[in-house]
Amino acid sequence: MKRIAVFPGSFDPITRGHQNVVERAVTLFDEIIVAIGHNTTKQTMFPLEKRMEWIKATFSHLPNVKTDVYEGLTVEYCKKFKANYLLRGLRNGGDFEFERTIAHMNKALLAPLETVLLFTDPEYASVHSTVIREILKNNGDVSQFVPVQILGDLLPR
Amino acid sequence: MKRIAVFPGSFDPITRGHQNVVERAVTLFDEIIVAIGHNTTKQTMFPLEKRMEWIKATFSHLPNVKTDVYEGLTVEYCKKFKANYLLRGLRNGGDFEFERTIAHMNKALLAPLETVLLFTDPEYASVHSTVIREILKNNGDVSQFVPVQILGDLLPR
Amino acid sequence: MKRIAVFPGSFDPITRGHQNVVERAVTLFDEIIVAIGHNTTKQTMFPLEKRMEWIKATFSHLPNVKTDVYEGLTVEYCKKFKANYLLRGLRNGGDFEFERTIAHMNKALLAPLETVLLFTDPEYASVHSTVIREILKNNGDVSQFVPVQILGDLLPR
Amino acid sequence: MKRIAVFPGSFDPITRGHQNVVERAVTLFDEIIVAIGHNTTKQTMFPLEKRMEWIKATFSHLPNVKTDVYEGLTVEYCKKFKANYLLRGLRNGGDFEFERTIAHMNKALLAPLETVLLFTDPEYASVHSTVIREILKNNGDVSQFVPVQILGDLLPR
Amino acid sequence: MKRIAVFPGSFDPITRGHQNVVERAVTLFDEIIVAIGHNTTKQTMFPLEKRMEWIKATFSHLPNVKTDVYEGLTVEYCKKFKANYLLRGLRNGGDFEFERTIAHMNKALLAPLETVLLFTDPEYASVHSTVIREILKNNGDVSQFVPVQILGDLLPR
Amino acid sequence: MKRIAVFPGSFDPITRGHQNVVERAVTLFDEIIVAIGHNTTKQTMFPLEKRMEWIKATFSHLPNVKTDVYEGLTVEYCKKFKANYLLRGLRNGGDFEFERTIAHMNKALLAPLETVLLFTDPEYASVHSTVIREILKNNGDVSQFVPVQILGDLLPR
Repeated sequence: MKRIAVFPGSFDPITRGHQNVVERAVTLFDEIIVAIGHNTTKQTMFPLEKRMEWIKATFSHLPNVKTDVYEGLTVEYCKKFKANYLLRGLRNGGDFEFERTIAHMNKALLAPLETVLLFTDPEYASVHSTVIREILKNNGDVSQFVPVQILGDLLPR
Repeated sequence: MKRIAVFPGSFDPITRGHQNVVERAVTLFDEIIVAIGHNTTKQTMFPLEKRMEWIKATFSHLPNVKTDVYEGLTVEYCKKFKANYLLRGLRNGGDFEFERTIAHMNKALLAPLETVLLFTDPEYASVHSTVIREILKNNGDVSQFVPVQILGDLLPR
Repeated sequence: MKRIAVFPGSFDPITRGHQNVVERAVTLFDEIIVAIGHNTTKQTMFPLEKRMEWIKATFSHLPNVKTDVYEGLTVEYCKKFKANYLLRGLRNGGDFEFERTIAHMNKALLAPLETVLLFTDPEYASVHSTVIREILKNNGDVSQFVPVQILGDLLPR
Repeated sequence: MKRIAVFPGSFDPITRGHQNVVERAVTLFDEIIVAIGHNTTKQTMFPLEKRMEWIKATFSHLPNVKTDVYEGLTVEYCKKFKANYLLRGLRNGGDFEFERTIAHMNKALLAPLETVLLFTDPEYASVHSTVIREILKNNGDVSQFVPVQILGDLLPR
Repeated sequence: MKRIAVFPGSFDPITRGHQNVVERAVTLFDEIIVAIGHNTTKQTMFPLEKRMEWIKATFSHLPNVKTDVYEGLTVEYCKKFKANYLLRGLRNGGDFEFERTIAHMNKALLAPLETVLLFTDPEYASVHSTVIREILKNNGDVSQFVPVQILGDLLPR
Repeated sequence: MKRIAVFPGSFDPITRGHQNVVERAVTLFDEIIVAIGHNTTKQTMFPLEKRMEWIKATFSHLPNVKTDVYEGLTVEYCKKFKANYLLRGLRNGGDFEFERTIAHMNKALLAPLETVLLFTDPEYASVHSTVIREILKNNGDVSQFVPVQILGDLLPR
């Protein structure tokens, strides 16, 4: 059976932390789908198209990494695409409690779905999209925190 | 002196985790008041009447569990009803820090008020109202997470 | 049914943290048994008799607090004395994980046994028997950390 | 080189926890700037002028504590005023993860900037501005949580 | 390239938590080696042969789960058997900090070695070998905590 | 008044984490004393003289960093040398709880003594002396974890 993992998130924007986790997991799965959970009622800093374009640019060198968008529950998306794994990065103790809650509830909803975790490498463990957006709003320099592939779009003006 | 405990919350909706904590605490106190903290400026998914009805249905078999609504500070409510205890469930490390802060501030406000804690049983420790609401918004199945007594109202259509 | 709680520990020595938790729980239960878990293979700083004497001195003003010693599993002791509750204090996040593990395993071993927790009051939340012993070994002053009732035995020489 | 620390926050309102950290750090630095991070899009309970006035009143007896307001990134403000240190208080495990993330991102943005931390003293470790605002909204008594210097403005009416 | 994972531990004895993690990971890897880290200077409750026999009995139905023993560093063992993954279970926040430290140090020692984590399922998250040994020493019943395959050896006499 | 900090530990051996914290704190204090807490009853891997020599080698380029040894309580040592500060590094959430306990107890013992904390930089946050000793016992390579100044003594044979 093909090992298909979904790496869900809002990627507003994608960070070096996201990149780090996916690149290290790429040989573990036959296919990784980086899937933007789209929610029409939740506001994001960057439009869906831009976020998708950035994910594609970041992983263009990895043929078994796909990019997609979904609405609704993550478990429904996994069921539809026969993904048996959710891939998640763990940065710190705060992530831990949140991820465990979500993993347990997802498994209760869809029994065979396993959440597979990697610790984010130390140099990226403090990178949060929320802080990146804050820096960008203040016209600061986020070049250390986002993939080099998307830097052209995010340099301070 | 009667041992009266208040179990405060927004119960939007009541979960099996709430149910688990109250049912296990029921012999420890002479009376438990499940009290909905009502805040006119905070939006909830379910109307106050529905939330109250669900709590009543969940505990209808327990004569010493009462249901109530209050506005304002929890400590004021406790003082008014001569409740000497606050009952709270602890699910995980995230709850811990939050609950301790609230317990210490409540005790500073009303000295004899003690917060009594039970660990939520493991099978309910990942159940959060926030996630339940998210599932319901996406028309998912929350039947494992809410009391059987209220399932009729919450089944996916 | 009588509400009987066991407050187990090695009490080597009893601290103001222990005292704080028991004194605040004293109206919640009909009887609290402060029970020294005795383990002939584990070395303690103070002999069993001394530790017991100190607990008795600390709670001599509280008629419903008993002192006892037990060997073997805590759950067996609780069963024997028909204690339905274990009382424990929570100081910090480190305590939390440990206490939850023990509480869940104890409940698995003896189903109706509930662990009831109080947050140690802030001024005692950093008091650990281990550190007290370290201070005593170096002839330091532990008078802020142990009950005033036992100070006479523990003043620096 | 002068040791200048910035103590950033929204101080909505200043608490005894803030006061505790600054007063204890006052001999460690040659100058501490208590700096209100002002954000025109974020709503606060108290106007900027009031928050500033309260900080000034709290530290009026400490000549090397200055008060200021800034917009934009904290690191930019530090650079402008040649502050090499950020001063922060640590209350609990929740603070820890947040503060570490911010400290690491700030250092990545401005290499010589070091975040220096003190543990908030135990009696103030549960004081949160968020809870103070909640109490004030309900016309409760916050006199134990805010500096005595500003009590006159915050007593329940 | 074959996906080979090492699941290292002392398994003194193997628990339902260990069993749970391996059984759920079995389709993720082509081979899982449950490897007892043997240390002649560290005392265990059960002899190496018994621990090995129990692991084999637990996973006898899973052809791609192997059992082995190693001395020395885990990374050296992984290198020797061309294992690119370490498999670990995460039970709670305490595990989290420990596992992250070990994972980061292991990766520093052997760059391509990735630690892959699963959250232990909630019903096993409080099962610790240390507590099991404590129960066994007191002739208690561990039948809920160890694999059914090894129960015959561990029933209370 | 001179700002004197004590950086206490067993340094068995000194790590890049220790080095990182002291080097970053060096401009904050007028003098930092790296002080080995010597305990004749506690066994260490390396003799006192070696540990001291390594600390000296690590900080030989920093004139205001001194090396010393003490027996007994850290607070007594601080009092004797008029050190008003204890310097400590925070690596992770596990450190946090331990350090806070020690800091609060030390302050209770010696009121003006403040514990000043820096977050260990991310690349050193997983470096623990315990793990280094484990690697050394197995003749592994610790060159990434200890100061370059002492590498000559610790290379695998």
